[in-house]
Amino acid sequence: MPVTTHGERLIALDEARRFVAENVRPGPTERIDLSNALGRVLAEPVAASYDYPPFDKAMMDGYAVRAVDTRAAPCNLDVIGEVPAGTAPGRAIGPGQAIRINTGAPLPPGADAVVPVEETAPSTAGVRILSDCKLGRSVAPRGSVRAAGQVVLEPPLRLRSAQISALAAAGAAEIAVYRVCKVAIIVTGDELVRPGERPRAGQIVESNDSTLVALTRECGGDPVSLGITRDDSAALQATFSRALEFPIVVAVGGMSKGTLDIVPSTLERLGVRWLFQGVDVRPGKPTAYGIGPGGQHVFGLPGNPMSCLVCYLLFVRMAIDGLRGMAANPPSILRLRLDVGVKPARDPRPAFLPASANLAGDPCVRAVKWHGSGDPFSVGAANAFIFQPRGDAALDSGAMVDVLPMPGMIG
Amino acid sequence: MPVTTHGERLIALDEARRFVAENVRPGPTERIDLSNALGRVLAEPVAASYDYPPFDKAMMDGYAVRAVDTRAAPCNLDVIGEVPAGTAPGRAIGPGQAIRINTGAPLPPGADAVVPVEETAPSTAGVRILSDCKLGRSVAPRGSVRAAGQVVLEPPLRLRSAQISALAAAGAAEIAVYRVCKVAIIVTGDELVRPGERPRAGQIVESNDSTLVALTRECGGDPVSLGITRDDSAALQATFSRALEFPIVVAVGGMSKGTLDIVPSTLERLGVRWLFQGVDVRPGKPTAYGIGPGGQHVFGLPGNPMSCLVCYLLFVRMAIDGLRGMAANPPSILRLRLDVGVKPARDPRPAFLPASANLAGDPCVRAVKWHGSGDPFSVGAANAFIFQPRGDAALDSGAMVDVLPMPGMIG
Repeated sequence: MPVTTHGERLIALDEARRFVAENVRPGPTERIDLSNALGRVLAEPVAASYDYPPFDKAMMDGYAVRAVDTRAAPCNLDVIGEVPAGTAPGRAIGPGQAIRINTGAPLPPGADAVVPVEETAPSTAGVRILSDCKLGRSVAPRGSVRAAGQVVLEPPLRLRSAQISALAAAGAAEIAVYRVCKVAIIVTGDELVRPGERPRAGQIVESNDSTLVALTRECGGDPVSLGITRDDSAALQATFSRALEFPIVVAVGGMSKGTLDIVPSTLERLGVRWLFQGVDVRPGKPTAYGIGPGGQHVFGLPGNPMSCLVCYLLFVRMAIDGLRGMAANPPSILRLRLDVGVKPARDPRPAFLPASANLAGDPCVRAVKWHGSGDPFSVGAANAFIFQPRGDAALDSGAMVDVLPMPGMIG
Repeated sequence: MPVTTHGERLIALDEARRFVAENVRPGPTERIDLSNALGRVLAEPVAASYDYPPFDKAMMDGYAVRAVDTRAAPCNLDVIGEVPAGTAPGRAIGPGQAIRINTGAPLPPGADAVVPVEETAPSTAGVRILSDCKLGRSVAPRGSVRAAGQVVLEPPLRLRSAQISALAAAGAAEIAVYRVCKVAIIVTGDELVRPGERPRAGQIVESNDSTLVALTRECGGDPVSLGITRDDSAALQATFSRALEFPIVVAVGGMSKGTLDIVPSTLERLGVRWLFQGVDVRPGKPTAYGIGPGGQHVFGLPGNPMSCLVCYLLFVRMAIDGLRGMAANPPSILRLRLDVGVKPARDPRPAFLPASANLAGDPCVRAVKWHGSGDPFSVGAANAFIFQPRGDAALDSGAMVDVLPMPGMIG
């Protein structure tokens, strides 16, 4: 069994993800206006507010007729008026009569079909019907698509523009969704300065805070950045106490076992019970997951930018999904053809390699050029990660490989 | 050549898209804080602000040593101090000496390698080095990943969390991006009421406004909803005059040739020159594209909700992309295996069918159950559209088909 450098057991990736899945429950819901629904997750079924269509509706521009009157086509009918869209059905038609009608308008009483304008010709006496027309032609009967009360969308469902389209058509001006869960982000490390500050000797520019703020938004959470905290017990305790007011806490850095890695012990003193500390995956070995005293989901992620990104997608995202009512499933994995082979590493751990996936045309994926774990730039060319089940076994060019997409990979 | 019901020529889909591509130019740029960069498009190259790493950096927790001193391993070295991360390199090491060092800390003067803690053992006299260590082991030399001034990311590039990670690491606190372009949305029709209002006789609930607001955000634009405008020349003229203050104008409904379809003529009076009116595609035949008097990109989309969504993705999105510096390419098309065959329609036009694509595992796509163009609800189950090159030719189960993804299909 793989162990950490200090002898703790490293758990397998699937086992680690199961721990998260088993501990996450759907969070609270709220009612919001449909105009704010993009990206939210539907929490209750939505039924049609009224019959759709709400009346027998013309599906073409043309003439509302009695189908029986078109049997003798070509034939002439008297045009006794017009029903524009948006008006109530008015005058009824009788035998031998037609009413000019536009797409979307209600059929007048007595009419049972619409002859499309293409199948008519002007006539001095009215309109000339060029071909026989079946009963119900170009008419959508009232309630034929959905009757009032019939369910249109079922929860849980992530709301994109297509779903908003369906909800709007159902008359759902207000809907029940899961609350957006807040994710506290704490970056730790004495050596860190913010982007834009010039690093002094020994210091390094911190990039995980900006990244996790963006990634949290992409994953449907609401980031609360608590900034950079020094590797100091009192400072960490103060910051983590604030962080534990939120349902998800992500602490970055300080999770491995150097002399200054006091992050896990500080969290323990605040009541966090670790469910795992160390996962058999590269990058991400120091990843930890625990439950806070109020049921908070607490994640410790490695400080290396690539590791931090991968482990957020592998673990933290599951908690966000679970809290917003979606199955806390492992992240969706694509199968793609490997464009350029991947060499074996010495490390046998299962690995995720930053990669560029191209789904258009003949879909394929290749690893981006990468200077290894000390390279925070190459991920800028990546939109996915290639999964290498055994880090010390090559992946051959042309092989089908598993790919973990980053948010927004398509679209 | 396909023609409209009134004899106008319908242009082919590719030709229509070429018109848009050829007329769109990159819009203005602005400088923004990196914290606001998610979803924006980079407009200028970003170079590393400083050498990365900014010093010879330890890549493991362990002991900084002179590699030459480990040749005799196993052997003991004197530990003369510690360099925590975030401190300036202090005391130098000499022959036979080691300094305890943490990942990320600067190598002390004199040291040229780091022995990982796993390859050491405690020793009364200092530290016991268990194996020989090569020069430069576990050290990232200053500037080895990027030297100051080397380019990290090139424009144009859509900024997701991975790109923000790379920019933050480069010290780019502020970046140049294309401005988010405003998209005016005008829905026309006497028969329309807003979601939440109860339709009176002859009226129908309008769903395109909410949909296009969401879709514009998903496509990286800034929607400006101008609401529902009646089919009245003066009202339309007033609303379109306001709309033409924006670089993209999307008018929904009133584009086909019913007696009340006065939208195209009103826009013409305001100086819009149509480049096409009518595309040989289903849905979307009435789609029009023109250039306003100030170079505005003016789109007329069909009022049918599904048509409106498809045509926005096919045409309007190209203009948004072009204005934000990205190639105004036709939308990305995936190739997926068709899970359930598609029957031929009578209409020979190339067709887009609302579909559900599943990319995990064995990727495939199938059309969603759909009651035809009068059904505004089934699109709620869709995340893509299947392209049927000839509407009157079946697509067989198992065939590879072209798929137009909706935004957010993955991720």
